[in-house]
Parts: sequence; structure tokens; C-alpha cells
Amino acid sequence: MYHILLDHLCEDPMYIQIYKYFVTEIHAGTISVNEKLPSSRQLAVDLGISRNTVNMAYEQLELEGYIVSKPKQGYFVCDVEGNIRLANDNNVTQKELKQKKTEEKYKVDFSPFGIDIAHAPYDRWKKIMRETMLDQDETLFQSGDSRGEKGLREAIRDYLHRSRGVKCDENQIIIGAGTEYLLMLLTRLLPDYQSIAMENPVYQQAYRVFHNFGYRIYPVSLDDNGLRVDELEKTNSKLVFVTPSHQFPMGISMPIQRRMQLLNWADEAPDRYIIEDDYDSEFRYQGKTIPALQGIDNQGKVIYMGTFSKAVAPSIRVGYLVLPKILYQRYLEEISFYATTVPRIDQEVIRRFITEGYFDRHLNRMRRIYREKCECLMNSLRKWEIPIELKGDSSGLHVIVEFDVKDFDTMDRNPVKLERELTGIAKEAGIKVYPLCDYYIHECDTHRKAIIMLGYANVSTDMIQYGISRLEEVWKPLMTLHS
Amino acid sequence: MYHILLDHLCEDPMYIQIYKYFVTEIHAGTISVNEKLPSSRQLAVDLGISRNTVNMAYEQLELEGYIVSKPKQGYFVCDVEGNIRLANDNNVTQKELKQKKTEEKYKVDFSPFGIDIAHAPYDRWKKIMRETMLDQDETLFQSGDSRGEKGLREAIRDYLHRSRGVKCDENQIIIGAGTEYLLMLLTRLLPDYQSIAMENPVYQQAYRVFHNFGYRIYPVSLDDNGLRVDELEKTNSKLVFVTPSHQFPMGISMPIQRRMQLLNWADEAPDRYIIEDDYDSEFRYQGKTIPALQGIDNQGKVIYMGTFSKAVAPSIRVGYLVLPKILYQRYLEEISFYATTVPRIDQEVIRRFITEGYFDRHLNRMRRIYREKCECLMNSLRKWEIPIELKGDSSGLHVIVEFDVKDFDTMDRNPVKLERELTGIAKEAGIKVYPLCDYYIHECDTHRKAIIMLGYANVSTDMIQYGISRLEEVWKPLMTLHS
Repeated sequence: MYHILLDHLCEDPMYIQIYKYFVTEIHAGTISVNEKLPSSRQLAVDLGISRNTVNMAYEQLELEGYIVSKPKQGYFVCDVEGNIRLANDNNVTQKELKQKKTEEKYKVDFSPFGIDIAHAPYDRWKKIMRETMLDQDETLFQSGDSRGEKGLREAIRDYLHRSRGVKCDENQIIIGAGTEYLLMLLTRLLPDYQSIAMENPVYQQAYRVFHNFGYRIYPVSLDDNGLRVDELEKTNSKLVFVTPSHQFPMGISMPIQRRMQLLNWADEAPDRYIIEDDYDSEFRYQGKTIPALQGIDNQGKVIYMGTFSKAVAPSIRVGYLVLPKILYQRYLEEISFYATTVPRIDQEVIRRFITEGYFDRHLNRMRRIYREKCECLMNSLRKWEIPIELKGDSSGLHVIVEFDVKDFDTMDRNPVKLERELTGIAKEAGIKVYPLCDYYIHECDTHRKAIIMLGYANVSTDMIQYGISRLEEVWKPLMTLHS
Repeated sequence: MYHILLDHLCEDPMYIQIYKYFVTEIHAGTISVNEKLPSSRQLAVDLGISRNTVNMAYEQLELEGYIVSKPKQGYFVCDVEGNIRLANDNNVTQKELKQKKTEEKYKVDFSPFGIDIAHAPYDRWKKIMRETMLDQDETLFQSGDSRGEKGLREAIRDYLHRSRGVKCDENQIIIGAGTEYLLMLLTRLLPDYQSIAMENPVYQQAYRVFHNFGYRIYPVSLDDNGLRVDELEKTNSKLVFVTPSHQFPMGISMPIQRRMQLLNWADEAPDRYIIEDDYDSEFRYQGKTIPALQGIDNQGKVIYMGTFSKAVAPSIRVGYLVLPKILYQRYLEEISFYATTVPRIDQEVIRRFITEGYFDRHLNRMRRIYREKCECLMNSLRKWEIPIELKGDSSGLHVIVEFDVKDFDTMDRNPVKLERELTGIAKEAGIKVYPLCDYYIHECDTHRKAIIMLGYANVSTDMIQYGISRLEEVWKPLMTLHS
């Protein structure tokens, strides 16, 4: 018996109220996995509403992967672990915490977020940390500059200049404890901005910060060249968050024409800004590195951000903003009272790591290792009999595998359902893959390809080969020809 | 010639518009220090307004220390460095940055914010850091729990329980990179709160965070027992920020009766919370430590916060929140996606520092050192011929020196003016002292004592004696009897 209170005065239509009731209860665990829902006929009678309304609610729940219909049996609650859409992200994190505990169950985890921990520069770090503590005295214990220490800002300025074409002086750089913190700080710097345009599909963590700060978020779709500026123009947003070097999650490198179009959009009004998140641009395997958007911006329109999470290790918690000069002035006047979030000892270790040449050497080494892994993954995938398209392998730490829903024996050729099905089957085989549908802000297009993301940074080549061949084994039976 | 644009449609009265014009220009440096302002008669003619309006603007500017009137000469612009009232804090930090550069000019700096860097546990830290890096492997490089590592949270739980009477389990503890960051995180946890009551005078950094987040701030005055709960009752605020162990800046320890009154206030409505900042409770020299407010709260009303900035070193950037259980649940569901801001290596070093007994030993040693410094300061002050009252010496790292304005040869017996005068004279003698007026949110009471704060943590006993005797030399001539 379900106690669904329908409110006729509520703005939500009736079917949405029913849908929300089930979403809440499934997340809360009061309705269990595999529990059978009442038939739409029965629930309609219980609630005194039309059967059609109940059906609409059930269809929405099914589309989003909360329930599954089994022919002649009815609707059953799915295991929603790791299965939460961004649009309902209130409970994502509790799920994620649970998820972490169950991660060890997987034999292979093709996470697009990992790095190769075994090859992280732990020994060098250890050595520099020891040297730093010996060379320096207790002044490292004194409170420091709220922007981060000058020496580190200079090292980052030089690195960004030579490797990313970023043009700035060290005063424009603000060091902070990770991307989320730096985005929080940005909201403090731009207090009058209440909306932001974001790529759709999107980098979840950035989405979550702006969502949590109550921003209205305008999803802007992508084409083969990345963010569609024509769509951006139609929003009211003065702010846009982009990942032009290697779009997350789609892996697109934005070509120069689109970059200029984006900069032109920003130039059209004095208070428009572009947030460029260059999260993994260190790793490019083919062709010349495309310089950062910041480097071709002459109008002070780009807020550039980067991190050492991918290039060194996620747990060192250091990232940076490069502010346009006008925003740097505002930073000084209005929010530089926020003390730095990075310990001085850690700042000094990174400074040495960069200026003594270890960072470049480490990146060269990792580029070689990641290129090998990427090639191994691509070669394994190319052996598949399942027809796929592969994208995003020229840079970054994950690739995109596209499936044509027509090739698969699914009931209604819905890409989201196929992605969920592929993910679920992979899970049963002990392999974790990442369905694209989890990265959509809103999704209406049911005519797209089904897409699975495969990250390879923290998987050995042996396990890459094993994982990819296992995926083919368990996925092939789903294909039309095999049914 | 001043280009003051008066806007008759503006909500601000005319005199406030004039006042704001001068504040902005003085901060911007377009009106220089010691520049003579036009007479009120002249400016009234220039602007076509009444002389009285100009006089009101000038009086406000004088009260806040922007200008000074010299008899028969007119009004002159003061050096506003370090002279900004909280209520106009937009430009505080730029001043502070400048100030830092000029700090070396002082022979003695009685800062209430310092710690004894020479006795900070740098060598032990170095040793533990080295051991940590040797014992642990590269898992320390992997991303960790967004709340902070379990081991550190357990160590803090045990420390808080035995030394502060805080009752919690480790899940209620959230580690973060410093007080300001943790307050930012709190605003995310309490997104529906738009106002907060704060002690007046107040801890500036906390004030600045809430002000920056657009909170309406209700200043609540203090009596000898700390925050006046009767005044708090009259505000509409559901949230209050207090420093009950050692009120910053007044040094008051809130007695148990007032604590119960405060908890009762919180119990009256389900959404009322008390933020207890226990920033320097480690250092108590007389009597028994008063346990934290959190420890006597049975209703989950207290959000407790602490830091290692005072107890270890300001640059290590580690603090913690202890959340009531209901808020911890909300944290998990809504904002645990914010990755931790503290590197895992640093977390492990602090964990060892606490669990291997070094923290307690260090605190015992520092209590002895600070007690000696405090006694040295108090003894030096007691030798003065200037009549003063001394307060706040039973704990913390600064004391309060009260002057009766009647004893001084000031024009209108205004405590704020006397504080500024004493601070200015001390500065000329190379000694930095901290006037209470800088810590008021709003101030109307001109009948209070003039108060100077003297911090002693980072001053040697020799320099304490020198500084205090020098202050007497330069301040005594101001007294009525000597004029």
C-alpha cells in the first residue's frame, strides 16, 4: 500500500507528483530493489485517478531507469545505485558513498575519473617534501598570501605560458584546494550572476556546484565541434562553463572557428565571461596541442582554470584560477579576505616539482604510458564484432564508444535504456562502465546513439584487454542478429 | 574641485551620498592623505545644498576616522591604512595587503592573531611527515573521503571528547581547509538562512564570510557574561555565531547560566542553530576549562567548529566542523559532492601528531610559554601610571586594556577617537596595537571605555616589556593631568 498524497493545488501535474513520490521512496530505500509496483489499473483505482496518469508516471520512471517492466509480470524497482540522473541529483552523493564501498566488487573499473596511481610521482614527491622541510625553516608555518605564494604562482604562470599558451602575470593566478573550491570562490567573485550556460552533457562536479549555489542552469547542446554557440546566444546567460580542450564527457576538441565564435559571443557584452576548465589538457597523443582559449582572448573574457589532480594526483588538492585583470582587481577588493586553502608546505613542494623540471618529465612519462593504454584499449575495441564508433582518443584519459540502437534487440530503441542495459550487464560480469545518460542535465533526444565512456588511466593493459573482451562476450547476445 | 554627483532619486539621503563619495575616493587614493577638504560652507555652495547636509557627512567621516578636524584649520584626510571600520569592509582586504608590506616597519606587533612561530612544532612535524611518507605508499595519492579520512576524524573526536567535552561520533565531523572554507560550506548546508546574529564586537573573518554571502547580519551586544540573549530574542535570526569560550575580541568566558539561556533560545524553534567557534580554547591559564557549549546541548542545536591554526600553525590549513546529526544527514545527501580541501598526506600527519601524543605535549608546552608571556604582559601593564583596567587574561592569546576617556585630554570624549589616537601614536613609536573600534559591526555607544587589544603570542618577553614601557611613554602625555 502506497501513501501517495496528491495535491490538486500543486504546480506539478498529477503524473509528476506520482513520479516524484516513487523517486523519493526508492532513494530512501522504503521501496526496495526488485519490489513489484502495483499495476497501473490498481494504483489508478486506489488513488481515484485515470489509469493513463499512472502510466505516464511509470513511463517516466522507466525512462530514467528507476523501474523496469517485465512482460506479463509488471513493473519492478531497479537497483538505483550509480544510476541517478543529474536532474535528480539531490541524492547522488549518498549513493556515491555507498557506491565506493561496493567498488571493490568490480574486477575492472573503466572510470573516466581515475589516474594511474601506480605511476604517480610518489617517490619524487616524498623526496622533495623531505628536502623542503630540511631546507626551509618554520616560516613555512606562518600564514601566507591568500592568493597562494608568489613563487608557486610564478611557476604556474611559466608552465601555463609554455605549455598552454596562457598569457597572464602571476598576480592573476589564485591557488585553491581543488576545482569545487575554486568554483565556490568564483561565485563569490561574480555575486550578481544567477545563471550559467553549461555544456550538455556536462562535467558533473561543476554542474553540482552551480546547482548547489542556486544558479539557473541553461543546458547547451554539442555538435561535432563542441558547444553550440548559436544555442548559447539564445539563452539569457552572461556566463558559460566550457571544456574546450577535451570536452567532458564527449572528448571533443573545439576547433579554432568555434573558439572564435565563443569569444565573439563574450565580446558582445561587457559582463559576459567564459569559464574555461582545462582539466586534462596535459595529455594529448595526436597532433599539436591546441592552446588554451585564454591565450587567444584579448579582451579579458576568459576565466581559466586548471588542476594538478590529473597531472599529479587527485589527493594533493591543488588547482588554480587565472583571472582577467578586471576580476583580479575585484578579487583583491572584495574577497581576498578568504585565507588560502592550500598549506604552504604543499605549495612549496609543488613549486619545486615544477621549477626543478620534474613536472615536465613526469608529464612526458605519463603521456607515453597513457598513449600505450589508450592504444591497447582502441585495438581491443577494434577487434569487436559489435559495430561501434570510437571517439575522443586523441587526448585525455577516456574514450567514447557509440552504439547504434538499431543494432540491438531493445523494445523501443531508446538509447538511454540501452546504455542502462549495457551498464547493468557489464556490472554482472564484474566490469564497471559509464553510460553517457548520467551526464545529461536534461535529455529529450531519443534519436542519438547509445554511448558508453571507457576510462583507462587506472587500468593495466592486461586488464584492459580482459575487460574489453569480456564486455564483447556479455554484450553480443543483445544484438539483433543474435536474438 | 570635487565631482560629486548627487542623485535625488537615490534611496540614500544626500549626506550619505556625499559621505560615500569621500569614502570611495579616499580608498581609491584619488584624495590623498593630509589633503584639506573644502569648508562645509564652500562645498554647500558648490553643490547647491544646505551647509547642514555637508556637516552631517563630514561628522560621519570624522566619526569613522576618515578625516580629522583641526581647530581653526578645517578637515584633513587621515591615513586610512588599517583604519577601516567593518561596516565599510569592501576595501578592507586591499588595505590589508598593503598593510602586510608595511608590517616590517613595526618594532613590536601586539597582534591578537599571531601564534608563537618560534615554538611551533616544526621539527616534530617534519619528522612525522617523513615517517608518514616512508610508512605509507601511494594510496595516499588517491582521492579520499569528502568529509576527511576516518582515522583523522576519530582522532579529533577523541581529542574533543577528552579536552572539550564535545559529544559526537566521527561521522559528524567534517574536515576542511580553514575556518572561512568551513563557514562557506555551512552556508551551503543552510541555504535557506538569509540572516545571522553575531556578537558585536565580532570576529572579523566570520563576519566577512556571512557578509560576503549576502546574509543580513544582526549585531547583538555583549555584557560581562557575553552575548545578550535578551537582545538575540528580539532579532528575527534563526542562526547565531558565538565564541563562548573566549569571546573574540573581548575575551569573555560565557558562564553556564548564559550558556543555558542561549541553548534555551535555540530549543524554542526547530530550525534555530548556534555556531560555536572554539577558536583558541586550547589555551586556558586559570581555573578549570569550561567545556564546549556543544557538550551540554542535548537537542542537536550546536554546530561546533575548531581549528589547528592556533594550536599548531596557521599555514597548515586544517579545521573541522562537528555537525548535529540531522545536519550531518543533510550534508551527506546534499553537499558531500564537494571534495575534501585537505590533502591526505597532511591529514595523516595531523592524525599521527594527535594519536601519538605529540599534540597534547605541544599544547602543554605552549600553555606554559603563553602563560609566561601573558604574565609578563600583565606585570608590565600593572606598572603603568596610566589608569587602566585589564581583562581577558585567563585564557586565549590576547588581553583587553580599558581606558576611561575622562582621564584623557580629548576634545569630545569619544572612545573611538581616543582609540584611533592611541593607535596612531603607538604606530609612530613603531608599535602596533589593535583598537577595539575596528571590530564593531555598527557602533552607536559613545559612552563605553576606550579599548586597546594586545596580543602577545608572537612577541618575546623582552619585546613585551620594551613595547609596554614604550607605550606608556608615548601615551602618558595625552592624559588630562599632563596636559
